[in-house]
Amino acid sequence: MNYSLKVQKALKKIKIGDKIRIIKNNKEYIGILMPRSELGDLDSIVLKLSNGYNIGIKYEKGVKIEKIGKIKKIKKQKIEIKKNSNLPTISIISTGGTIVSKVDYETGGVKALESVDELLSNIPELQSIANFRFVQPVNKMSEDMEYTDWQKIAKAVAKELNLGNAVIVTHGTDTMHYTATALSFMLKNLSKPVVLVGSQRSSDRGSSDAFMNLICATYAALSDIGEVVICMHGTINDDYCVLNRGTRVLKMHKTRRDTFFGDYPLAKVYPNGRIEILNNYNIKKQGKVIVDTKYEPKVALVIAYPNSDPDILNYYLKKGYKGIIIEGTGMGHVPTNVKNYWIKTIKTISKKIPIVIVSQAFYGRINTNVYSNLRILFNETNAIPGEDMLPHVALLKLGFILGHTKKLDEIKKEMLKEIVKEISERSEI
Amino acid sequence: MNYSLKVQKALKKIKIGDKIRIIKNNKEYIGILMPRSELGDLDSIVLKLSNGYNIGIKYEKGVKIEKIGKIKKIKKQKIEIKKNSNLPTISIISTGGTIVSKVDYETGGVKALESVDELLSNIPELQSIANFRFVQPVNKMSEDMEYTDWQKIAKAVAKELNLGNAVIVTHGTDTMHYTATALSFMLKNLSKPVVLVGSQRSSDRGSSDAFMNLICATYAALSDIGEVVICMHGTINDDYCVLNRGTRVLKMHKTRRDTFFGDYPLAKVYPNGRIEILNNYNIKKQGKVIVDTKYEPKVALVIAYPNSDPDILNYYLKKGYKGIIIEGTGMGHVPTNVKNYWIKTIKTISKKIPIVIVSQAFYGRINTNVYSNLRILFNETNAIPGEDMLPHVALLKLGFILGHTKKLDEIKKEMLKEIVKEISERSEI
Repeated sequence: MNYSLKVQKALKKIKIGDKIRIIKNNKEYIGILMPRSELGDLDSIVLKLSNGYNIGIKYEKGVKIEKIGKIKKIKKQKIEIKKNSNLPTISIISTGGTIVSKVDYETGGVKALESVDELLSNIPELQSIANFRFVQPVNKMSEDMEYTDWQKIAKAVAKELNLGNAVIVTHGTDTMHYTATALSFMLKNLSKPVVLVGSQRSSDRGSSDAFMNLICATYAALSDIGEVVICMHGTINDDYCVLNRGTRVLKMHKTRRDTFFGDYPLAKVYPNGRIEILNNYNIKKQGKVIVDTKYEPKVALVIAYPNSDPDILNYYLKKGYKGIIIEGTGMGHVPTNVKNYWIKTIKTISKKIPIVIVSQAFYGRINTNVYSNLRILFNETNAIPGEDMLPHVALLKLGFILGHTKKLDEIKKEMLKEIVKEISERSEI
Repeated sequence: MNYSLKVQKALKKIKIGDKIRIIKNNKEYIGILMPRSELGDLDSIVLKLSNGYNIGIKYEKGVKIEKIGKIKKIKKQKIEIKKNSNLPTISIISTGGTIVSKVDYETGGVKALESVDELLSNIPELQSIANFRFVQPVNKMSEDMEYTDWQKIAKAVAKELNLGNAVIVTHGTDTMHYTATALSFMLKNLSKPVVLVGSQRSSDRGSSDAFMNLICATYAALSDIGEVVICMHGTINDDYCVLNRGTRVLKMHKTRRDTFFGDYPLAKVYPNGRIEILNNYNIKKQGKVIVDTKYEPKVALVIAYPNSDPDILNYYLKKGYKGIIIEGTGMGHVPTNVKNYWIKTIKTISKKIPIVIVSQAFYGRINTNVYSNLRILFNETNAIPGEDMLPHVALLKLGFILGHTKKLDEIKKEMLKEIVKEISERSEI
């Protein structure tokens, strides 16, 4: 117990994991006693509420604490895993994150699930759909993912696919769309879908989306799609999951289960296995999957907004960055008022390293023509219009291209070319 | 005519504004001949197509050009404007942008409409709703707006409201949500709604949203709302406009007419004047409007993403910035892997200037507790959780607060306090 002596005294015989009632200033708090957070106040008692969230209650004179029960430890049935040679094999490529995590009552944190046994004892019905294999190239919360992790995951996926297995990549949701984009560029000639799946609420919570997402991902992994997709809740209810194209999807909400929103959803997947096609997709290919993980990490994403200073571009150039994505406004505008003359700076920098213009207005296409400021930006400088790429997609594409060439004209040509549907076809001139 | 001699020769008697056909490589292009773009290729002939967009066609040997007509100049009926003393007065506060622009066939650009006459000759029906007055504190495309423009607009709005007039602010759409946020903070005790309106397509185009948006804005300006709102198309059709709260709305699409999306829409306004309430709003107040435009422009918005380097925070500190907003991932995460140790840098910098954490997952609330990395970020450093504020809203709020105090503890207190509904009430603990 890592609380202050004062708190320890007040807790008496109450142990971590006990259900307790705290009364402070006439307010009642009921929850499971958790360990103090690593760097939290020594006097702050951490309670896990029934909604899954933790709160800290500062212990003071007059605060009453009472034990009202023990947490019921649900004994998971030990499942005997049988291999069924009639069923396909799916490799679960686990990378960490909330999806299959369980609350660790010793540290108060969440831990990634660590084996197929644990997965199948949570969702026994999966055994009737496929055999499962467990691979863990990375174990990180998704906010900590780096390009080296994308490379490891890409290699693990290619290896499993080339063994003939289908794959599901379990991943934290925060940067799942970054990883989906990286895998889209790093994997070629996909012989099966690459399905990323996660959950917004950990599997110990009643409202967890982990189980349905995993079930849908399993069906998705066995479909004929030859693309990298994200499989997550399509609504706030447990209706169906949506498979969003890996290069056309964003995490829009911090807590909602239907947080991922894409403008090119490929299909709905119902938990009973039914798949409803929404848009055209690439069909899986014959032959070996090719993995190409070359990546230049020195690429920066910069926002241009009122009163922003374009000197930030000089900063990145001096730091040795090899390319910059600018999130402008609307159709690709940057401020052109004299004091903060972005275009002048872009003109200088874009002679040395590639600068790609995308927009804070995420959807729709950059226009190089309709307003005079856009004509100046794209005619007078070497700025590359980001077409209708999402900012993080343009960032990773630039890193991927820079991993292969440093020649400005080649980079421009490649950036404007659709590689994995990250740019959609033009519907108007 | 500013084309090359070669092009001028080929154009012969064709004049700017003539309708022409160009045949190049067996492809036909029909449109209005426009002047060359200021910095464009001397040989590139600019055509305005019927869809309103300009294209450039490089003149080469073999290209055929033919005049097929003259642009019909629609003679606008000269409207006699009568003042009706039974009707309220609305001040049109014009700031530039596409809303009331017309294509200038001499320059190829768009010009802001410059008088009430021009407005009413486009939409004569407005005369039966109100008398109009024209004020132009600023005339800029919205990508060029600076905080000094917000100050001018705020003062102009307060002046008109305190004269007893209702107000409509016409504004380019690119940064309309920034200006709406700035006005929300700079204007207090609103005696009438402040309605910002714009258009995604200029009024010379068939699909222009300018007219309906202006009509709806007129009705909105006469409503009992006491907030700053954005009035734009609610769907891709001409069904209705939506009034979104000024501090809870984003421009999401580059070209769609229903580009503005907010999570707290206040009302629908139909072009026949019907107003359908969607959410609670502040009712307009008695008394004088108070304007307070103090603003510190040295605030920066930074994105944290995989492989991003927190040294950017040191850069802004050295440049004399007074506060930084970080767009993290998910519930407010920043990368915590060793190489790019954001939290360590935030710890140092947040002792000197305020650092506020918001998220790329725009909607929902920052959480300071649910994951251990969040507990470290918000317990071990002075980072301020941005609650459920949108990134640009947090940015402008910080600039506004810094305009009034430089004391860290006061800034933190103010940032966490709801001022103009930019933070929504918690629905859960």
